[in-house]
Amino acid sequence: MPELGTERIRTEHETTEPAERLARAALTRIMEPQDATGLALVRLLGAQEAMDRIASGGGDPALEQELHAVLQDHDAATGWKGLGAAMARWRPRLEALAPARDLHVAQKLGGGLLIPGDQQWPAQLDDLGLQSPLALWYRGDVGALPDKERAVALVGSRDSTSYGATITADMAHELASRGRTVVSGGAYGIDAHAHRAALAGQDPEATVLGTVAFMAGGIDRFYPSGNEDLLRTVARRGAVLAEVPPGCAPTRYRFLQRNRMIAAFAGATVVVEARWRSGALNTAHHAEALGRPVAAVPGPVHSANSAGCHRLIRDGGAVLVTDAREVMELLDGPPAESGDGGDHRIQDGLTLEGLLLLDALPLRRTTTLEKLGVVAGMDPQGVRAGLGRLQLLGLAESVGAQWRRAAAES
Amino acid sequence: MPELGTERIRTEHETTEPAERLARAALTRIMEPQDATGLALVRLLGAQEAMDRIASGGGDPALEQELHAVLQDHDAATGWKGLGAAMARWRPRLEALAPARDLHVAQKLGGGLLIPGDQQWPAQLDDLGLQSPLALWYRGDVGALPDKERAVALVGSRDSTSYGATITADMAHELASRGRTVVSGGAYGIDAHAHRAALAGQDPEATVLGTVAFMAGGIDRFYPSGNEDLLRTVARRGAVLAEVPPGCAPTRYRFLQRNRMIAAFAGATVVVEARWRSGALNTAHHAEALGRPVAAVPGPVHSANSAGCHRLIRDGGAVLVTDAREVMELLDGPPAESGDGGDHRIQDGLTLEGLLLLDALPLRRTTTLEKLGVVAGMDPQGVRAGLGRLQLLGLAESVGAQWRRAAAES
Repeated sequence: MPELGTERIRTEHETTEPAERLARAALTRIMEPQDATGLALVRLLGAQEAMDRIASGGGDPALEQELHAVLQDHDAATGWKGLGAAMARWRPRLEALAPARDLHVAQKLGGGLLIPGDQQWPAQLDDLGLQSPLALWYRGDVGALPDKERAVALVGSRDSTSYGATITADMAHELASRGRTVVSGGAYGIDAHAHRAALAGQDPEATVLGTVAFMAGGIDRFYPSGNEDLLRTVARRGAVLAEVPPGCAPTRYRFLQRNRMIAAFAGATVVVEARWRSGALNTAHHAEALGRPVAAVPGPVHSANSAGCHRLIRDGGAVLVTDAREVMELLDGPPAESGDGGDHRIQDGLTLEGLLLLDALPLRRTTTLEKLGVVAGMDPQGVRAGLGRLQLLGLAESVGAQWRRAAAES
Repeated sequence: MPELGTERIRTEHETTEPAERLARAALTRIMEPQDATGLALVRLLGAQEAMDRIASGGGDPALEQELHAVLQDHDAATGWKGLGAAMARWRPRLEALAPARDLHVAQKLGGGLLIPGDQQWPAQLDDLGLQSPLALWYRGDVGALPDKERAVALVGSRDSTSYGATITADMAHELASRGRTVVSGGAYGIDAHAHRAALAGQDPEATVLGTVAFMAGGIDRFYPSGNEDLLRTVARRGAVLAEVPPGCAPTRYRFLQRNRMIAAFAGATVVVEARWRSGALNTAHHAEALGRPVAAVPGPVHSANSAGCHRLIRDGGAVLVTDAREVMELLDGPPAESGDGGDHRIQDGLTLEGLLLLDALPLRRTTTLEKLGVVAGMDPQGVRAGLGRLQLLGLAESVGAQWRRAAAES
């Protein structure tokens, strides 16, 4: 059993008891992400007492009952096997516990551990409720983490196409240059393009980071290895975050759990390219469950890498987006009054009668009011009034008592 | 003033009075499509009496009042200028009226005039209410016109890309080969590709036509001229329909009015490619107003020809579709139980605990139950039970008392 609290580590972000940070550091090692029983225990007793309980191995019927109630409150009680089962699960990991050393390792990596209550704690993660992480191991400048209104998740296929790469790069670059944080998972493909373009595009004046990567493994286990240089740069110029302690391998289970943090951290999640089944859809579903806007980029219908995006849009779970401006609307709402493309043709302002008359007006020769009435199917009075309006719009011109279409009209 | 009813024309479809057919033939010449006052007059008096009134030029205050009421019922009374104004509009066209000759021309073209009450009258057009056409001039086999459940409108840009052409051809071919009628407008681009592929794909056993074209001008005015051969083939092997009589030019006003018939005739409207502003969107909005499903095909976000489609999907007015199967779902509803792509990976069936355990199982060497418990963060009992389930799924194998991942799992 480790000695908790004997070794005091101070970090620059420390605003709470060091004992609390040590306890949470230890708990992230003992519990897999989203261990419902563990999270309920911490909610009930606080991290330090929860850690003490786990260390002493003691449970009691009253605690058991309270835990069950918490789990029920969060729809997490189905199939619950009791605190004893959880203790048995945690016990094997107690032996090697060394939270102070873990904190030291993180510090040496240029990082540390953020815990709820820290000023830099990204409060948007609390929207996960019971599934909110116990703590966040980090590298980078967490003093400039964005609130959710300034963070967009760009996620997608590992085997992205050049189409997906181009769109991701365009979007991420523009979002970062407009002071938004691009959030992703550090994988090959869309993730990497998103981080890279955000780093390139980030506004030096911005108050928030250009990009943040959530790791499935520890902050010292950059994965995949081909992205090591990129993730090192993200750690230096943005931030790398993980809920598992240094040294932890990125397992499939942890990849899936990691996705919920990306979805919660960002105010909107955009799937740029995804196959019919893709981890990116998992992130999108987490965002949907949190009530965060989800969007997807359309692509050629023959591209397997757009099939997942089309599926999301088809199912009504995602809004279709085509550029950074539309992505920002997900965060900010539609722009006040900026026009919708702008190319209003002058005919659009015409009444149906005006259009009838315009159709009837010859382009190369002139014609009489009477003939116009026959061709357009309008009475002489209507023809006269309509011609007047067309003339004002520059669409008709008179030559003596005759009329023709004005050259201006195309 | 023409002599109505003196010359009796019988057509093979005649199930109503020849006088009724003559009257409606005349009215289609006098009134532009969707002339609200005219349509209200016909609704009130019937076509023959309406024609008599127009010919005699007589109105009275009681009729005026009734007309106004009909227009109000159909939200068409705004800005109404009275029957007198309409009479003045119609009068110039009375002189040249020759409905019997028009019917004769249509017959010589291998067609005729369908009117409401005819067995072949496409009843789905009546969903247009007051805007339903007075009659339909046709060429082709109108005995095999589809009901709306078997008709799909494929519409889009005149300047379609090769991407749009390919998708239209695939969709139209498959829809026609599955006994659906592909409806379009005979224009260059998407329309032409739709008609052509439907002709090529149509099921010879089908009880409905492979394709139908709605013209903005008369059935003898194939427009654009570059599509003359194609439209001639559509008239021979499908059908060509118009609400204006032979000889009428396809004006812009008539193009817009024509779109409402395409939307009403088809059970669903699919926009394959459309610019930000496009006539195809007009058809889509008509379909939406009628409560008919609207769909759009996504494309590359950089393609201007997909911008209108993306806009429709974004605004929520259109469902995203990628192939003929999804288009048919708009007509038939989703298939009973056909799978959704099929590539269920075996891990999908695992519980979270199962996934934790699978992640912990080494691939190349074996490990003990105790070590698995530490790595996976599970109690020994859970490890044993979980391994049993993984073994059943062929994902784990035991070597003596040791365990490893089974080779089958990829």
